[in-house]
Amino acid sequence: MIVVLRPNITRKQETEVLREIRKLGYTPHVIRGVERVVIGCIGDERTQHSLETLISWPQVEQVMPVQKRYKLVSREAHPRDSVIPAGPVRIGGKRVHVMAGPCSVENEKQLMTTAHAVRQAGATVLRGGAFKPRTSPYEFQGLGEEGLKLLAKAREETGLAVVTELLSERHVDVVAEHADILQIGARNAQNFQLLIAAAKTGKPILLKRGMSMKIEEWLLAGEYVLANGNPNLLFCERGIRSFETYTRNTLDLCAVPIIKEESHLPIVVDPSHGSGRASLVAALCKGAVAMGADALLIEVHPNPAEAWSDGGQQLTLDRFARLMKELEPAAEAAGRTLKED
Amino acid sequence: MIVVLRPNITRKQETEVLREIRKLGYTPHVIRGVERVVIGCIGDERTQHSLETLISWPQVEQVMPVQKRYKLVSREAHPRDSVIPAGPVRIGGKRVHVMAGPCSVENEKQLMTTAHAVRQAGATVLRGGAFKPRTSPYEFQGLGEEGLKLLAKAREETGLAVVTELLSERHVDVVAEHADILQIGARNAQNFQLLIAAAKTGKPILLKRGMSMKIEEWLLAGEYVLANGNPNLLFCERGIRSFETYTRNTLDLCAVPIIKEESHLPIVVDPSHGSGRASLVAALCKGAVAMGADALLIEVHPNPAEAWSDGGQQLTLDRFARLMKELEPAAEAAGRTLKED
Amino acid sequence: MIVVLRPNITRKQETEVLREIRKLGYTPHVIRGVERVVIGCIGDERTQHSLETLISWPQVEQVMPVQKRYKLVSREAHPRDSVIPAGPVRIGGKRVHVMAGPCSVENEKQLMTTAHAVRQAGATVLRGGAFKPRTSPYEFQGLGEEGLKLLAKAREETGLAVVTELLSERHVDVVAEHADILQIGARNAQNFQLLIAAAKTGKPILLKRGMSMKIEEWLLAGEYVLANGNPNLLFCERGIRSFETYTRNTLDLCAVPIIKEESHLPIVVDPSHGSGRASLVAALCKGAVAMGADALLIEVHPNPAEAWSDGGQQLTLDRFARLMKELEPAAEAAGRTLKED
Amino acid sequence: MIVVLRPNITRKQETEVLREIRKLGYTPHVIRGVERVVIGCIGDERTQHSLETLISWPQVEQVMPVQKRYKLVSREAHPRDSVIPAGPVRIGGKRVHVMAGPCSVENEKQLMTTAHAVRQAGATVLRGGAFKPRTSPYEFQGLGEEGLKLLAKAREETGLAVVTELLSERHVDVVAEHADILQIGARNAQNFQLLIAAAKTGKPILLKRGMSMKIEEWLLAGEYVLANGNPNLLFCERGIRSFETYTRNTLDLCAVPIIKEESHLPIVVDPSHGSGRASLVAALCKGAVAMGADALLIEVHPNPAEAWSDGGQQLTLDRFARLMKELEPAAEAAGRTLKED
Repeated sequence: MIVVLRPNITRKQETEVLREIRKLGYTPHVIRGVERVVIGCIGDERTQHSLETLISWPQVEQVMPVQKRYKLVSREAHPRDSVIPAGPVRIGGKRVHVMAGPCSVENEKQLMTTAHAVRQAGATVLRGGAFKPRTSPYEFQGLGEEGLKLLAKAREETGLAVVTELLSERHVDVVAEHADILQIGARNAQNFQLLIAAAKTGKPILLKRGMSMKIEEWLLAGEYVLANGNPNLLFCERGIRSFETYTRNTLDLCAVPIIKEESHLPIVVDPSHGSGRASLVAALCKGAVAMGADALLIEVHPNPAEAWSDGGQQLTLDRFARLMKELEPAAEAAGRTLKED
Repeated sequence: MIVVLRPNITRKQETEVLREIRKLGYTPHVIRGVERVVIGCIGDERTQHSLETLISWPQVEQVMPVQKRYKLVSREAHPRDSVIPAGPVRIGGKRVHVMAGPCSVENEKQLMTTAHAVRQAGATVLRGGAFKPRTSPYEFQGLGEEGLKLLAKAREETGLAVVTELLSERHVDVVAEHADILQIGARNAQNFQLLIAAAKTGKPILLKRGMSMKIEEWLLAGEYVLANGNPNLLFCERGIRSFETYTRNTLDLCAVPIIKEESHLPIVVDPSHGSGRASLVAALCKGAVAMGADALLIEVHPNPAEAWSDGGQQLTLDRFARLMKELEPAAEAAGRTLKED
Repeated sequence: MIVVLRPNITRKQETEVLREIRKLGYTPHVIRGVERVVIGCIGDERTQHSLETLISWPQVEQVMPVQKRYKLVSREAHPRDSVIPAGPVRIGGKRVHVMAGPCSVENEKQLMTTAHAVRQAGATVLRGGAFKPRTSPYEFQGLGEEGLKLLAKAREETGLAVVTELLSERHVDVVAEHADILQIGARNAQNFQLLIAAAKTGKPILLKRGMSMKIEEWLLAGEYVLANGNPNLLFCERGIRSFETYTRNTLDLCAVPIIKEESHLPIVVDPSHGSGRASLVAALCKGAVAMGADALLIEVHPNPAEAWSDGGQQLTLDRFARLMKELEPAAEAAGRTLKED
Repeated sequence: MIVVLRPNITRKQETEVLREIRKLGYTPHVIRGVERVVIGCIGDERTQHSLETLISWPQVEQVMPVQKRYKLVSREAHPRDSVIPAGPVRIGGKRVHVMAGPCSVENEKQLMTTAHAVRQAGATVLRGGAFKPRTSPYEFQGLGEEGLKLLAKAREETGLAVVTELLSERHVDVVAEHADILQIGARNAQNFQLLIAAAKTGKPILLKRGMSMKIEEWLLAGEYVLANGNPNLLFCERGIRSFETYTRNTLDLCAVPIIKEESHLPIVVDPSHGSGRASLVAALCKGAVAMGADALLIEVHPNPAEAWSDGGQQLTLDRFARLMKELEPAAEAAGRTLKED
């Protein structure tokens, strides 16, 4: 921790700060600069009382942490890329995996049609919401357990792995029973009780970035998963909230190289929520792959105009099949592949 | 719903859109403007399929909803101000209530000292976190049930009502047993399962605005509470996330008159999280009261520098007592009072 | 400057950093912490090469400035409040000044009617745009010099001081000739050439905060004015851009106490642009005054629905007169007055 | 324009609105929906009084524009891609151009070394700031005209085209004399007087997106250039301001396909300002090219740690040469080339 003192304070006031720093377990080192006195405080910021509370003192101008607050998710702790097993697939290797399917599971026909089509086109994971977090209580809330069973059936029929959202601690067991990957959505990205419960299932967790989550906060939310004994974590960038209204969210593709730099864990990109517009999805997929994404999460629906949720951002089956073909050269240029490796 | 068509589409393409609109249950009215064709679609947007999915069609340029999506929380549905009973206090009347106390409950002495001091100064509700949502898994997570018991004890000793955060569906019963008001924090503001579970206790809910929640989304989150049978809701503005880093959050005080305009429910302001800096709290309290806030939620600690969480934004007992005095003329100027009415 | 080294670098790499720090004119002090090596660098950050460029080295993890970058605008340099003379008025004293008038000067009748009405209601400064920065080239761009002459005429007739926007270095002389205060708008808040040219007229400058300007950047833009020999500066908060779309901008009222803390210069609040909605203006004025604003800048128009720009946020003459009465108790509660002091 | 009326207004109030709509030159069409009355107003929104001012009336709830506000920059007006000639290069065709060079021109040696190196590596345009917009008045403000002359000399020696920033209307002639492309920086993106003056030179304009500019506002700023008779415009995405602080800005790569969809003009991407970190530049370049960018603008310096500005985001000459090689497969995968076409 670095503590910067205000100018024009007395030596006595300075001594009080030093005494408090020692009391809180740190060893202070004073540096007298041109305009400010700076105190370097030696001690472990992760396990000790944070000195940030010192900002409440009138003689303190700034308190700046020096250590990184996350550890298990950091590349510092684990220099090599982690590969995460999820049912039959392994995410984080040379192959870029595509997770595709409808926003919501609506009925058997819709799901099976989509599952077969995306598998045919090269996807390895089926997505589909059974429990849906909807902005309004009057919107379709998902089929619940019935939706999970349909997903399980689709897995059996197609061999695709299944990723689906977990909304509530009460659903942990039933979702873990039917899914290969548990998705924690943007609205629950700092619902730490849910993260802990999900972590304890041992299943891989796909952790979406919250709408207003800084990279550091996202890594720390991931730290909750690893600190609770589950090493199988996937980060998923899905757009942050900015002032721009042309797109539903602002997809922060720079998160791809940042997660690669800061962490050993795979990074997934969701261009469907990231833009909210089907016409932009293909370009975003290409960008994500070129920048190093390990997987894509794409919404696909047999008839988007009649989808029960988020129709504007879902691709038709045809458009998805074409996209998979268009992505091949981008993957190759990035030293990756979309096919079995 | 208003559907705007792209220019230069054929009559046949237009007819397809009209057919789909009818299929989805709306009656279309075509208006041919100077550069665009606009279709007014008559039907209930809240109970029918949303036409927003039509944006997935190439001939559609824009889809704009016309109706408000919330109903029970709206002033349209309930023109007069609601007054919410919370233990011994009633929030939303002439009196501006002050909810004060430490960020976290740390131990009996800290809590009792604070409780007596804030009561003495004029607060009517005691705040204090027993379950704490912390950005890092290595930070203090709260005393849990022990903290709740200390809060209950403080209530008994001081007569203050108690507001405390509910973090998990698993804690609903125990928190509802000990608290007069259940706080849903910013990170859980769109954790709809938690909102529903909290609503079902019948206890008043203090719903903080999420860090990146639009006013409409906040009202809709509140709608989840009322739609689940609980009319006792308080909205709490606590700052949104912006690019500004001087303050921890950007307190959107304009939310006060907006909530008054759009809803019949009381609005509470939390200047402690709203700024993250003790030195700014007093000014923000004055602004909030002048603008019509029904209550304030203020963090107070006997020794902020040694607080186990958020020390930088907590007021000392003395500063809080002074603030209460400073607020009186502001309340009076606003036609309100801080004392019994 | 504080330089934090990456972990696991060699002593040789550390020595290279120390050598570069010395080469750039600073004296390094090394502190070996638990997980990181931190280097305190002594030297004047304002006059010397910024060490922030060191971040380009692979062995450097963070570079953190310690000094404040602004000086002349800071309260550190000038502890007492500055009072700024602007024509017949002095801003920054006990009296809260109200600057009112139409968004754009449209014609003589509109301006004179408004000028007399706002003067009658208690305003001391007349606002009105002659050169208008409009988002689209097809929108009304202002009457230009003709508008300035109408403003000058209104000043003569009413005794009000005049504030109007300066858009271009080419207009500096003509605007300075007719106005008492030169307004630099949000879009030009970091148009430093314009700031310098405006500063050199010696006229008071009203510097609006840019839409995405951090407090520090705003203070530094103000520093351009003072560093160019003009001490007569007013900061004006007019709302920042956030994700919220209910209001046109998010009025950051916390800027009021922050500017008071960091600077000796007056702070003006513009609730009209800050909200974009006439119905919210009164509440924001009350909040601003309660929090310590030195002046308000309010848009008023005889017939907002037919205004040539920004009609949605302009008050009618009647509403403005009522507002002035409503503000009196708020001003008094804040130890201020709206009348002659 | 669509005008939505508030519920529960009288027929008389409705009639007043209709009368005003007619008075303002539009023909109203009333649609009575389930909960709201909606009025479609026929008339040209670009040339007539905007009805948005009607929001100031108590009986009006919403006013929604239907037409696009930009015309000349729109793909609607000009369906085929425009190719912009800039000195010896043509931007917008199959070749992806790379504009590279130092943030600031510092001296002849620095500039010539960089110019030769970037040309050698495959760049076609030399960038370099002679007039610098700096946040603080105490920072290096650029070499001014001397810098322009050095750029012209570098052009002569290397055959590279030159792009440099224009900061002031006073510099229009001198910058236009020495540069092939006039850059309008993010801080001046809505300095419309500067845009008009730059447009009138007839030189190609590179218009950076302002830090908080919505896509629509950016297109409208570009409309100022075309409406002033200059068809040679390049849009340049350089990152928007969000809450994220890991990067200097948030590069909105989605702007690439959006500009392609909405406009016929080329899109350039600046990953240096977009991230502020040299280590992220290569990944962002690959993403930009994969998504369809027509050119890249990259900062390169012989010794970033000693750069006079923005050292943290500048690439070394070696790193740049390697990057150019890495980009080739990405360009090819996108159906483009980095070499002569």
